[in-house]
Amino acid sequence: MVPLGKRLFAEAFGTFWLVFGGCGSAVLAAGFPDVGIGLLGVSLAFGLTVLTMAYSIGHISGCHLNPAVTVGLWAGGRFPVRDIAPYVVAQLVGAVIAAALLLYIASGQPGYALAGNGLGVNGFGPLSPGGYALGSGLAIEAVLTFGFLIIILGSTDSRAPAGFAPIAIGLALTLIHLISIPVTNTSVNPARSTGPALLVGGMALQQLWLFWLAPMIGALVAGGAYRWLAEEPLAPAIVGENL
Amino acid sequence: MVPLGKRLFAEAFGTFWLVFGGCGSAVLAAGFPDVGIGLLGVSLAFGLTVLTMAYSIGHISGCHLNPAVTVGLWAGGRFPVRDIAPYVVAQLVGAVIAAALLLYIASGQPGYALAGNGLGVNGFGPLSPGGYALGSGLAIEAVLTFGFLIIILGSTDSRAPAGFAPIAIGLALTLIHLISIPVTNTSVNPARSTGPALLVGGMALQQLWLFWLAPMIGALVAGGAYRWLAEEPLAPAIVGENL
Amino acid sequence: MVPLGKRLFAEAFGTFWLVFGGCGSAVLAAGFPDVGIGLLGVSLAFGLTVLTMAYSIGHISGCHLNPAVTVGLWAGGRFPVRDIAPYVVAQLVGAVIAAALLLYIASGQPGYALAGNGLGVNGFGPLSPGGYALGSGLAIEAVLTFGFLIIILGSTDSRAPAGFAPIAIGLALTLIHLISIPVTNTSVNPARSTGPALLVGGMALQQLWLFWLAPMIGALVAGGAYRWLAEEPLAPAIVGENL
Amino acid sequence: MVPLGKRLFAEAFGTFWLVFGGCGSAVLAAGFPDVGIGLLGVSLAFGLTVLTMAYSIGHISGCHLNPAVTVGLWAGGRFPVRDIAPYVVAQLVGAVIAAALLLYIASGQPGYALAGNGLGVNGFGPLSPGGYALGSGLAIEAVLTFGFLIIILGSTDSRAPAGFAPIAIGLALTLIHLISIPVTNTSVNPARSTGPALLVGGMALQQLWLFWLAPMIGALVAGGAYRWLAEEPLAPAIVGENL
Repeated sequence: MVPLGKRLFAEAFGTFWLVFGGCGSAVLAAGFPDVGIGLLGVSLAFGLTVLTMAYSIGHISGCHLNPAVTVGLWAGGRFPVRDIAPYVVAQLVGAVIAAALLLYIASGQPGYALAGNGLGVNGFGPLSPGGYALGSGLAIEAVLTFGFLIIILGSTDSRAPAGFAPIAIGLALTLIHLISIPVTNTSVNPARSTGPALLVGGMALQQLWLFWLAPMIGALVAGGAYRWLAEEPLAPAIVGENL
Repeated sequence: MVPLGKRLFAEAFGTFWLVFGGCGSAVLAAGFPDVGIGLLGVSLAFGLTVLTMAYSIGHISGCHLNPAVTVGLWAGGRFPVRDIAPYVVAQLVGAVIAAALLLYIASGQPGYALAGNGLGVNGFGPLSPGGYALGSGLAIEAVLTFGFLIIILGSTDSRAPAGFAPIAIGLALTLIHLISIPVTNTSVNPARSTGPALLVGGMALQQLWLFWLAPMIGALVAGGAYRWLAEEPLAPAIVGENL
Repeated sequence: MVPLGKRLFAEAFGTFWLVFGGCGSAVLAAGFPDVGIGLLGVSLAFGLTVLTMAYSIGHISGCHLNPAVTVGLWAGGRFPVRDIAPYVVAQLVGAVIAAALLLYIASGQPGYALAGNGLGVNGFGPLSPGGYALGSGLAIEAVLTFGFLIIILGSTDSRAPAGFAPIAIGLALTLIHLISIPVTNTSVNPARSTGPALLVGGMALQQLWLFWLAPMIGALVAGGAYRWLAEEPLAPAIVGENL
Repeated sequence: MVPLGKRLFAEAFGTFWLVFGGCGSAVLAAGFPDVGIGLLGVSLAFGLTVLTMAYSIGHISGCHLNPAVTVGLWAGGRFPVRDIAPYVVAQLVGAVIAAALLLYIASGQPGYALAGNGLGVNGFGPLSPGGYALGSGLAIEAVLTFGFLIIILGSTDSRAPAGFAPIAIGLALTLIHLISIPVTNTSVNPARSTGPALLVGGMALQQLWLFWLAPMIGALVAGGAYRWLAEEPLAPAIVGENL
């Protein structure tokens, strides 16, 4: 077992990479005039942050990068309860640093404004890119996090082909963004929502509760559902062991 | 062998994921102003629903998610006849639930209209995105389903590299959408067509026969063709065994 | 060894899939109003035709789908001279059938016109999408086919990771299209050029020589270069053996 | 061990492929009217040059294609100091040849102009595609190269799944471009910056220092950080051994 300190460093850097890469692509490149990457490019960027880190630090920390993943793995019997809090704190630290660095870099462009959606915050109603209501946001965040955890638990199952889980999990995050950016700007990850919201404040911070509540509900239900689906009880283990 | 009940749950959820993710990306994100994901993003989304589920539930149910796949695997000697009906029913249940949930979420945007193509239904003539005639729709659905089944049967053949089939199969569905969305909005999957058509009704329901007939023809011919191509008779088995 | 007849059937169907899928995406979906797949989608489609077929029929025929690949594999010491002619004929048969079927399906849209670039032909000067001159076309086709063959020979080398070659080769074709569609509409494959040119005739047919000459030069040089690079003489074998 | 001469040939050709493919897609196809590949396509092209070469020449030279990668692998204890200089020279030779060939091919289009950004040079301030200041460019190049090297060192670690490193590394380069093209046109690779800058001259050449300095800082820090993270000292070896 890798010592906790190094695992937490890996989780913090990995979550930094997720938020800096995903939100960074949205803030810097999505709407670049004429040839920008659009929502498709942002979706790809978020997924690739996870795919690349899962192959690189999966053997160190399991590469959760997401409090809902950590809690869902615990609910699925794959992660010890005593490590949940330190993992979540490390993820939040990485997310906040990523948002701060992104703010510094984006500010290097004349005319940049943090207001509006200058850091890629999540939201519903007035903060939803497509103006979707709270109910739509709650439903889609919970359902997509449920699917995300089923994919994480299933693709790292010892009966699934070995080595492919980072592809399945990373591209699952791409898929989830392809569906739901217009609704909530896509979270399924409370840390990813918290980093930008802390720097932007205001309504983004007031709506932050939904991006903790809905992913956690989806993750907890998925953990229980996969345990039933997979029949036999699974030994607690770091997800990375099956990567 | 996983018990039938759990396999059916996996098929139902997987087909839910395919229809909710694929049609969801089309309804919510494809035409998002200026930076939408376009037909390319929708094609990617459909493919990734299958890629992600094949790695996650392939070892549980074989991950068909499609009545034409189930029937084509039977024709190819890989699936027992007694399980066809329950698999197809589970797939239809998942597809209908997905369409209903998508309708609820999409309705959370002011101005959403189910009419037009508010749920991503398949069709020809007036319902074809590019106005293509019935003959074009019939031909392309049959040919692309034929190719899809050849890829499924070939990539899960014991002589193909182990573990890569979900990539080949998922990206085959992406390819199929890249070609044919303008013609029929792409089905190659009777369950995916049935879910939205049942909720939209009208002409979508009247044209539904084609999206059962053409994929089934393509799948049956492919099952026979691959049996001949692969020389030796293959033992009936769940496709997931070779994943 | 799979009997020649079945290998030729596999080559013909695989080349059909390449031309129908690649050119089909260009003709039907690339310029679809507002949300079309663009050159990026067409590039992805061509690559995915090869990726999907390599996993599905690689163990049957080696999945060349391209006379330049067949000749380059021979030059690299991996394919017997006696099978070159039948493979090339099978590839041409598949390409012509694909172009004919695509013409039938495209004609199902009111207002479709074969003239212009209704089947995705290759060309230079007036037929180059960006108006590029003959010299540019000759150079880019030869260089990109050289790189394509280096990737095919390298990724199927017994020292490369097993099972990944179809990903490397398929995505190489995507990359090649991302670079060169504006110059020649991208060939690197004489069969892919010949199918549409035979049906369109005229200048497309007059320029066809370049799309045999340049890819063949690139492939022959690559075969020799990789033999030198890989040091030891490689036993003649079907490329599929290393897939 | 492959003789140094063949390893240098592989590095030179691989870097040629990276610069010709990546910058080529930007110069020829990114802004093609209406259906161009955009920054998303350019990002994909750069990543695929590395993915395809890593599977093809990884077993020959390790497939660095980048002086910062060579130096970062040395810092991480994976590459012998005596081979750094020859590798870097080979990479620069490949990059310059690529830029020259690209110039020849691009000149085959009437109206092509080298001035402006006719070869895809990197820059900040007036040369930044989005007008970003020097500080933003320095920060993003250093941070993204740091992440790139962590991914290279981590995914080729003997504890990571074997064979997948080229996917992780190639798609990491795609991700890096998705984030940072608007800021610096994305380098993270001094050779890629040097090739076009030498041919374009002027301000591109004056700003070249940043694209050596920032990637080297990021790579050196990453080499040290991964050594600490991976706990045990790693034997010097070619990265390709773990591919």
